[in-house]
Order: sequence, then C-alpha cells, then structure tokens
Amino acid sequence: MTDHRTLRVALLGAGSVGSQVANLLLERADELAERTGARLELAGIAVRDLDAPRDVELPRELLTTDASELIVGSDIVIELMGGIEPARTFILEALGSGADVVTGNKALLATHGAEIFDVADQVGASVSYEAAVAGAIPIIRPLKDSLAGDRVTRIFGIVNGSTNYILDRMDRDGLAADEAMRIAAELGYLEADPTLDVEGFDAAQKAAILASLAFHTKVSIDDVHREGIGSVTAEMIESARRAGYVVKLLAVCERLQEDGEESISVRVYPALISREHPLASVHGGNNAVFVEAEAAGALMFYGAGAGGIETASAIMGDVVSAARRHIAGGVGVGESPRGTVPVAPIGRIETRYQIRLEVADQPGVLETVARVVREGGVSVAALEQTTIESGEGAGRAQLVIGTHRAKEQALSDTVRRLAESDVVERVASVLRVEGE
Amino acid sequence: MTDHRTLRVALLGAGSVGSQVANLLLERADELAERTGARLELAGIAVRDLDAPRDVELPRELLTTDASELIVGSDIVIELMGGIEPARTFILEALGSGADVVTGNKALLATHGAEIFDVADQVGASVSYEAAVAGAIPIIRPLKDSLAGDRVTRIFGIVNGSTNYILDRMDRDGLAADEAMRIAAELGYLEADPTLDVEGFDAAQKAAILASLAFHTKVSIDDVHREGIGSVTAEMIESARRAGYVVKLLAVCERLQEDGEESISVRVYPALISREHPLASVHGGNNAVFVEAEAAGALMFYGAGAGGIETASAIMGDVVSAARRHIAGGVGVGESPRGTVPVAPIGRIETRYQIRLEVADQPGVLETVARVVREGGVSVAALEQTTIESGEGAGRAQLVIGTHRAKEQALSDTVRRLAESDVVERVASVLRVEGE
Repeated sequence: MTDHRTLRVALLGAGSVGSQVANLLLERADELAERTGARLELAGIAVRDLDAPRDVELPRELLTTDASELIVGSDIVIELMGGIEPARTFILEALGSGADVVTGNKALLATHGAEIFDVADQVGASVSYEAAVAGAIPIIRPLKDSLAGDRVTRIFGIVNGSTNYILDRMDRDGLAADEAMRIAAELGYLEADPTLDVEGFDAAQKAAILASLAFHTKVSIDDVHREGIGSVTAEMIESARRAGYVVKLLAVCERLQEDGEESISVRVYPALISREHPLASVHGGNNAVFVEAEAAGALMFYGAGAGGIETASAIMGDVVSAARRHIAGGVGVGESPRGTVPVAPIGRIETRYQIRLEVADQPGVLETVARVVREGGVSVAALEQTTIESGEGAGRAQLVIGTHRAKEQALSDTVRRLAESDVVERVASVLRVEGE
Repeated sequence: MTDHRTLRVALLGAGSVGSQVANLLLERADELAERTGARLELAGIAVRDLDAPRDVELPRELLTTDASELIVGSDIVIELMGGIEPARTFILEALGSGADVVTGNKALLATHGAEIFDVADQVGASVSYEAAVAGAIPIIRPLKDSLAGDRVTRIFGIVNGSTNYILDRMDRDGLAADEAMRIAAELGYLEADPTLDVEGFDAAQKAAILASLAFHTKVSIDDVHREGIGSVTAEMIESARRAGYVVKLLAVCERLQEDGEESISVRVYPALISREHPLASVHGGNNAVFVEAEAAGALMFYGAGAGGIETASAIMGDVVSAARRHIAGGVGVGESPRGTVPVAPIGRIETRYQIRLEVADQPGVLETVARVVREGGVSVAALEQTTIESGEGAGRAQLVIGTHRAKEQALSDTVRRLAESDVVERVASVLRVEGE
C-alpha cells in the first residue's frame, strides 16, 4: 500500500444522502485512497440533532452540532443540509477557509449560485454540484467539461422523478390525478411539502442550474417560467394518448435568436411528447435529460433521479475530483465566466400546441373555429372532432386542434379569442408539444 | 475582452474529424478563450499529403508534413491520425515534451494504452480520449470522474454504429444481411476495411478501453472475447422478434466473483435484448451505453456514435479541459492507478441463452432434447416448437429453447451434446440474452 497524503473531509448533514455518503467514505477508504492518491479522513458530521434516527448507522463520535468548528481546517466540505440558510453561510465559510465545496443543494444554487461561484473564483476553490440535478446521472460534468468546446442550443428533460411517477401511473394504469398523487406520497416519492414537486419548483430550480451552466449565464429560479402538473387530468392524458402523445413535466432551456438578438428561455411545464420519443419511455421515478449541441447533436443522459444511495454516488464523484485536484496542486478550475444573456418572456417562445375545445354540436362550428385560429396567426396542422362520451361535457362535441409551430403570444391571444367565441363552450386544455 | 495567455495547439491529422476540429479551433477562438481563460492558437496541422481534399477547407499555411517539428513547444497535441504507428511515436514525443495529449485513437489505446498512460503519469501530463469511444457521447469522463467514488459493476452497450445500422435495417425493414451490409457500405457507415466493424474489432477496442477505465485495470484488445455479426441471419432476427427480442451487437464488461476471486469479463457478441429494454430502441448508427454501479444504479448514455463533427465535439471538450488545467497550474490528474484484475475466459460467464434447433418431427424428440439439456446442467425457462415454413430446413420442426442463467461452459457442452444427438438435425443458432 502506497503512503497517501491525508485530506480532511467535513460532512454537513446526515439525512438520506448524507448518511450514505458518510458510509461510503468510511467503508471504501482504501479504494478511495487508490482512486485519489489521498486518504479521505471523515473529520466529522454536523447534524442538528445528535439523536435523530439515520438511514445508516454512523459512529457517534463523528457527530457534532457545531458545523462552523468542523469546517475550520477542512480540505473538502460536503454540504447536504439543504435549504438556503444556514447552508449558504457554511458554504461561504468553507470557501473562505480555502476548502473545496461539494453540494447537492439545488434550492441554494438556484437562488444564490452566482454569489457562491463568484466567491469560489476569488479564492481559487471549487464548488461541485453534480448531485443537485438528476441524482446519480452525470449531467453537470458533461455540460461543464465534455461539451465545453461545443455550443449547447437546447436542453430538455424530465428532472423531477415524483411528478414523472404520478404522470406515468396516470398514463400507464389509468389512475386519476389524486389517486396517483396519494400513492406517490405513500411511497415516499413526494417531498415533505408536495408543492415543491407538484407545482414544478424543484424542476425549476434544476432548470435554472442547467441553463446557467449550459449558456454560461446567470439564471435564477425567478427567471424560470413555471407551470406544475396540478391542471393535468386523466382526460388530458387519454386525449394525448389518442393523438400518439404522452404528458411529461419537462424542463426546457433553449437559446432564442430574434432580430439578431440572443436570449434564452427557461421553462417548466407539462407538455406532450411523441410516444416514439425516447423521453416517452422514461417511467416511474427516473430522470432523463436531452442535450442538443451544435457539433455533438442530440445526447441523452438517463438514470435514477433521486434516492439516497444514488445521489451519494454523484457526491462521491465530486469528492474524488476535488481530492485529485488537491493532490495535483493548482487552483480550482471554476465555472466558465458567466455573462448575462437576457431571459426571454414566455410569450417569445415558439413551439407546437394541442388545443382541446368543447364546442356546440351545430353546423358552422368548424368554420368559425378555423377562422378564429387563422386570424390569430396560428396555423392548423391537424384537427379531430369527436363526441364526448362521459364525464363533464358528455354529449358535447370535442375539437382537438394540433397547431404548427407558433409564437406563444399568438397562441395565447388565439386561445383567448376562442374562449370568447359563441361556438366554444369551454377551452378544455392547451398543451405545448415538445421534442419535435 | 480580457487579456488571455496563449496556448499552442498542434493538430496531427486532418481527416473527417481533424478538419472539423481545426475549423472549430479557428472559428470559435473567442468563445474558447472565454471558456478556458487562454487563447488556443492552432500552431499547425500535420498531414501526409498537403494537397489531399478535406471535408472543410483549411488555411494552407497551417499545413505541414513534419509532425515532430510541430509537436516541439506545443502545450496541447491533438492526435487524429488513427492507427498504431506513427501515432504512438508522436504521442510519446508529445508527452516527452510536456504537452497534454488529446486523442480519438481507439486502436492505439486498446493495444498500447498502458504504456501511454504510464508515460503520461511519469511526466505529469494528461492523455484524454473521450472521442475514442461512442463519438460525441460523454462516457469516458463520467467513468473517470463522475463515477470515480462509486464501484462500476457492469457496462454494456452498443458502441459500433455501423453494425447497429445493419442489424436495425434487418430488424425493422426485413432486409437480408448482405443487402443491409451493401446499403451500409454505400451510405459510408462501414470503415474502408469492413471487417473492423462487422467482425467486432472496433467494438472490442472500445470494450477494452471501457473495461480498463471502469475496473482500474489493464485490458488490451487481445483480452476481449469477440464475435462479429457475420453469423446473424434474417431468420435469427425473425425468430428473436417472435420471442420479444431484438438482436444487437453488444460490448459487455463485467465484474465476476467466484470463490472469493475477483475477475472481469470483457466480450463483444451479437446478443438478444428484450424489446422493452431501452437499448432495443437505439436505431440506425446511434450508440448507447448502460453503466451499472453499486451506488448509482443503472445509467444510460445515448447519442451519435460517429461522424466528423460529432466526434470533434468530444475532442474539443478534452481540449478545453486540458487548456483549463494549463491555466490553473498543477500537474495532470491522470488515470487512477491501474492494477491487473484477471480476465476470465468466456466459459466463466453466466447469462441466459436462446438455442434454436432443427429437429426430426417424430415422437420423443422433446423428451430427448429436454434430457440432454438437463444433463448438461442447464435449466429450461421456455420452449417453443414450430414447423419451419420455408428456406433451409423447410418442413422440419424447429425447437426454440430459452434457458435460465447458466455458465457458458455448461451451455457450450450442452450445445455440443445436442449437436451430436440423433434427434437434432442442426443447431441453427445459439444467442446470449443480455440486459435481464
């Protein structure tokens, strides 16, 4: 066995991910020494409550409630407390003392990322956060390094496993929304506050992180257009299925170009995806992210989006990289410098849409609807008229309109005019179509 | 614009990938300076023939036939000549002069990888080779860095686009093997020497590289069990379809554990994959690699496996990383130290099999076959008897046996005994079943 330098590792937080990370650091010490050229000494684990139950049993003598004291003198600080404060303060303390930071804190990075990366750059330390997006799936590092010589044009994917589980059960087992949500909660898929998942906040945090990295800019959660899955009904999913689609909660980050002005759009919403698209076969709690780049073309990254042990794998990858850097010397290779590319309002995006209308079953309806849509500057690609068999609106005629690509602004104006039209009883749903 | 240090980049080779790399270095100079903190100056392009036609027009004054001279004084050397020599000599010269090396040369790494990585470690330089496996898909970096704190147990995937194109056309369009191969050749999918693709050499090179990296050991192409797609017939594909499978040329690298002894198996062969498996929907010339790790679970990486511009994206990612390292100072973070894990012979692997037999259509055949299989220590999971409608063997009965997991050695003994049995006319095919 070679003699190895020792690096002092501080762990903040011992929840489902933190306890697994502690366990890996302890159990795989020899293997990690081989991988990094350094012995990674777990100096301590800062927790709120020394007696709280843990997923994995941890040596009592490593636990402390004093995170600040633990940070002093550490080479690598792993922050897995979650939330904004005190996590932000501890990360800044760690960077201030020259430590490299590894974190999985998406909420913090999506709000204070720019501040944290600036401080890291100033002190020549690194902040790694592979675990913040899509659990064990390597997506941050490919964007930061592998695609650094290319130009990313678009990212879209399923980055929230809980909502994917709910939509998948609705699609595959015909469950109603509340039923699927109840099961997801029972199985532990939902956060303590389910609105974080269901209303798309979690996905929006990840979208902000991905867009910032891919487009070398500063996007915060407030810049993300966000719609949750609360409005998705069994009926919408059934209607999507008949048209060859599946409903997925997507995070979309893309470059827009208009009159020579570059901007980006970052958004989270339930959208239709063709059943032929690889994202359509992402089931259960899994995540998958498509990245399109000018030279590389389309790439997909797929795997478990959450889970203590899976997310711990991503943390450990970052820890090993930080350790190797310490051994190799040299300052931290930080993020690329970030500019500020303007974020376009949702009205500027262009995509395809599916509009479902309940209409009066009388002559001239189709003609009227077609005219309103055309006058709105939207072009119809497909149109299907059926009679609603049961439920709300039974007996009425239903019109499903698939549009060609249109500006969101033109579409929403058109939908408003349709809603006001005499022949339209109800606009049942409007969904964007992605991945085409 | 910030003042940037200048790094001298030498490019060896200006084929389909090299000319795209040159073009990106020249066209995106400002963007690359932003990304790396250094101006990447393309000092020259070494070619064999100054007047050869190129995919992209290159400035004549950059071309030279003297690679050795170009290498001297370079910070980063990009080797895209392919083949063993003189590529190996130039890479060693580059490392000797302290340059970082970026290469896409899978043939070289699969034969002389250990030598090259050793030299790089000695001099503190880095050798990057994301482009050597699966084109633009980031797979080397995730294995080297993201999963470095985890333990990879298995890699399997489609790493040769040409054979995937051929098998896909046979499966989806019912083409005969020679027809599909002819079209693949016409479309430029096959290498100048098609046996590199068709007989699995290309996939075996990539498997050797992946196994070496994932299992921190030294695997050369000679250690890889290799079977090509030459034996795959339209009839095999049709029979696979009826059983719910598709035939893919797979590279498989896995850890084996037997009597407490650890070994690895590295193999390339056509295998059956369930149509429900994500690899089944990898069409055309695309590549996809599944990685299974103890903590991370199953991850999939998918994208274009070849193509000049796509592969250039992977090269550029490595170039940017090398440049950042130069700017940050510090020695190259090389590969993890590599031991030598024994490579198990193919007889030691365990998987499921599908055996197709042509048998005499007479009483007692099933019983005899069942007895021979049982005596061979192989357990039958499914059995289907049909009458062969047309082609060779028309009128005979066909028996398709799906086995439970069995040792390859037991299986091949069993198949030999079946072939010798009076009631078996012909062993039509034996295929392994992967991904289950």
